[in-house]
Amino acid sequence: MPDDTPLKAFALNCSLRPSSSDRPSSTDKMIADLLAAMAPHGVTGTTERVADFDVKPGVLSDMGEGDAWPALRKRVLEADIFILGTPIWLGHPSSLARRVLERMDAFLSEMDDQSRMPPTGKVALVAVVGNEDGAHASHATCFQALNDVGFTIPANSGVYWVGEAMQGKDYVDVETIPEPLELMLSTAASNAAHLARLLKAQSYPGLPDGD
Amino acid sequence: MPDDTPLKAFALNCSLRPSSSDRPSSTDKMIADLLAAMAPHGVTGTTERVADFDVKPGVLSDMGEGDAWPALRKRVLEADIFILGTPIWLGHPSSLARRVLERMDAFLSEMDDQSRMPPTGKVALVAVVGNEDGAHASHATCFQALNDVGFTIPANSGVYWVGEAMQGKDYVDVETIPEPLELMLSTAASNAAHLARLLKAQSYPGLPDGD
Amino acid sequence: MPDDTPLKAFALNCSLRPSSSDRPSSTDKMIADLLAAMAPHGVTGTTERVADFDVKPGVLSDMGEGDAWPALRKRVLEADIFILGTPIWLGHPSSLARRVLERMDAFLSEMDDQSRMPPTGKVALVAVVGNEDGAHASHATCFQALNDVGFTIPANSGVYWVGEAMQGKDYVDVETIPEPLELMLSTAASNAAHLARLLKAQSYPGLPDGD
Amino acid sequence: MPDDTPLKAFALNCSLRPSSSDRPSSTDKMIADLLAAMAPHGVTGTTERVADFDVKPGVLSDMGEGDAWPALRKRVLEADIFILGTPIWLGHPSSLARRVLERMDAFLSEMDDQSRMPPTGKVALVAVVGNEDGAHASHATCFQALNDVGFTIPANSGVYWVGEAMQGKDYVDVETIPEPLELMLSTAASNAAHLARLLKAQSYPGLPDGD
Repeated sequence: MPDDTPLKAFALNCSLRPSSSDRPSSTDKMIADLLAAMAPHGVTGTTERVADFDVKPGVLSDMGEGDAWPALRKRVLEADIFILGTPIWLGHPSSLARRVLERMDAFLSEMDDQSRMPPTGKVALVAVVGNEDGAHASHATCFQALNDVGFTIPANSGVYWVGEAMQGKDYVDVETIPEPLELMLSTAASNAAHLARLLKAQSYPGLPDGD
Repeated sequence: MPDDTPLKAFALNCSLRPSSSDRPSSTDKMIADLLAAMAPHGVTGTTERVADFDVKPGVLSDMGEGDAWPALRKRVLEADIFILGTPIWLGHPSSLARRVLERMDAFLSEMDDQSRMPPTGKVALVAVVGNEDGAHASHATCFQALNDVGFTIPANSGVYWVGEAMQGKDYVDVETIPEPLELMLSTAASNAAHLARLLKAQSYPGLPDGD
Repeated sequence: MPDDTPLKAFALNCSLRPSSSDRPSSTDKMIADLLAAMAPHGVTGTTERVADFDVKPGVLSDMGEGDAWPALRKRVLEADIFILGTPIWLGHPSSLARRVLERMDAFLSEMDDQSRMPPTGKVALVAVVGNEDGAHASHATCFQALNDVGFTIPANSGVYWVGEAMQGKDYVDVETIPEPLELMLSTAASNAAHLARLLKAQSYPGLPDGD
Repeated sequence: MPDDTPLKAFALNCSLRPSSSDRPSSTDKMIADLLAAMAPHGVTGTTERVADFDVKPGVLSDMGEGDAWPALRKRVLEADIFILGTPIWLGHPSSLARRVLERMDAFLSEMDDQSRMPPTGKVALVAVVGNEDGAHASHATCFQALNDVGFTIPANSGVYWVGEAMQGKDYVDVETIPEPLELMLSTAASNAAHLARLLKAQSYPGLPDGD
């Protein structure tokens, strides 16, 4: 019964604006709402904004001098649960979300002796916000990339809020979490905590050495 | 000055429900709104529901006995403007929209002596409706498929309406067309008519015979 | 230690051709290769071709007289591991794959008292084949839809083969499984069996009744 | 007869590596091959690598001090034909391609008195290369974004090369352009030049002032 093992979550907010911006981030709010839903399940989490760091373009785990990715990568791999948070632009995840996924491409060639990529045994969720339209497509491409590089996707791991077509409301301006989103956040939180615990106790065995 | 050549539009409504259904189709309403916006530009159009026909699975232009595609295909190719109308299910176009695109795969191998596919010189628009989320992704995959098989995509050819995340309103229940959608419909209609006329007067030359 | 619990897999081959077709199905071969990789892990599986059945369009679990989905749905839910196998047409999953996913849309409103959808605790893999290009996009939209309706996606659950751009070789004509695909199949099989066993022993708790 | 009006093309290569890299860029080669196919049609073109510039994150046309986008944006709008060239990473366009599209989001609110976005009357093509898989999905999301912000997509505007699944050959190592790609390049070049000329002579009228 691994039910009360403490778990760590790490979230990357891929907003285009750094935290020094004077406007609050809707993506931050969604991540915070998700972490709040995880707290009763023994999950503590931290969030960083990718726009606060100089994450270099490239597909290696370390792109050299000044590259902020190695430190963020370390925190991704120290956590049990990874949350990719992204706003939607033109219907798709932000360029910073693609940057993060690109940097994880390196995991494909960093397998251990049992042919397991570094995130094996960790779970990932994708939190998406936009004025309008693009959440399912964002979940789709993010789930695929995260799964390709070794993360497990617990049931119902895509959380989101978007407004009606072509309107301008932001999630930061949604005063009360709508009931279906409340249910979505609770479900994602419960599922992620449960699955992260199962995998933390018994990770994937991988393939026999030399397979 | 080709500005008053009459133009013909043909729309396929890829709703999962046949027209005998007792519930009105939101996709039908969006197509009707788009055709109404085209009328002042000299475009007359007709619509059919794919669910009313037995469009067989396959990637040939005629899948044999009982296949309703050859007659629909003929109407697509007799029109100057093709409108693909689809509802969104799980964030993406309906299975009937994919069926229509699959049947158009045959165009790839039906080139004329100038290496032009049958829809060359025709323009396509994509009209999408859903309770929530999925319009941009639907436009994306439909634009790509239609363009691959020879259609031209006029500027701003994706029209859509979707509601707020996880709510249940349908486009048929939207009483007044919201202003941004009104602008979107007017723009798409004007652009499609303009470009269809230019291409009707001077179609793509294609490649020299034997290239 | 749940390590030798027997597991059942069920695969739906979404090829456009029925099994009566005189040409072998590349999707069938990929599914068979994946099931073969699962056998050493105590997984036995069966496959059906969607094109052999009359799966009606719609988003209810039973679309009435003549609908073949209820029987297939039952087999999906009796298995521990679901494999969605699809060919690629114009860069995306087949219309029959979309049909299957659409029918699973009903799971969204079939939650039990703990707010769990019917596939909760089951894992899903996506097996894709094409002459060329489209596998990652197919994985993406299928993972998202399957995850939305309650399936868990084990690490590295997307398996595929596609040929070089615009060439015509089929997977059935690939005589020896290429080494990277062999590794991909072994990994997916091992991960799926491991995770399906963990979840079979301890499924997601869901939310408290009345949450 | 506008057939010999000289046309200008401008290409952005969204490779993750700057031109100072010691390895040649496959995306560069594809763009060069496409420009070469355009030359006989009276099109002259230039290419820039986005990675050589400091294109700031954001969705305004000018993100302030040090932002290289305003100068690139000017060149996009001075050309008749825009080519977005991108490599594929994890099945999708590069983060720099998303960055370029994000910056074009500003076009949505920069309409003239006839409600036309700045790229109205210009055509766009999308050139994609990868070791393997992802071209159609890249075309799809790029076509949709470019069309949303006002570009017209000529018939058959997606050009690409990708290798067989999970292999490592690059397009720079493809010694002779394969015949189907040759045809694809010729067709895209011919169509783009034809349509750019038609639209240069008679651009979209847009909507009446005050509509």
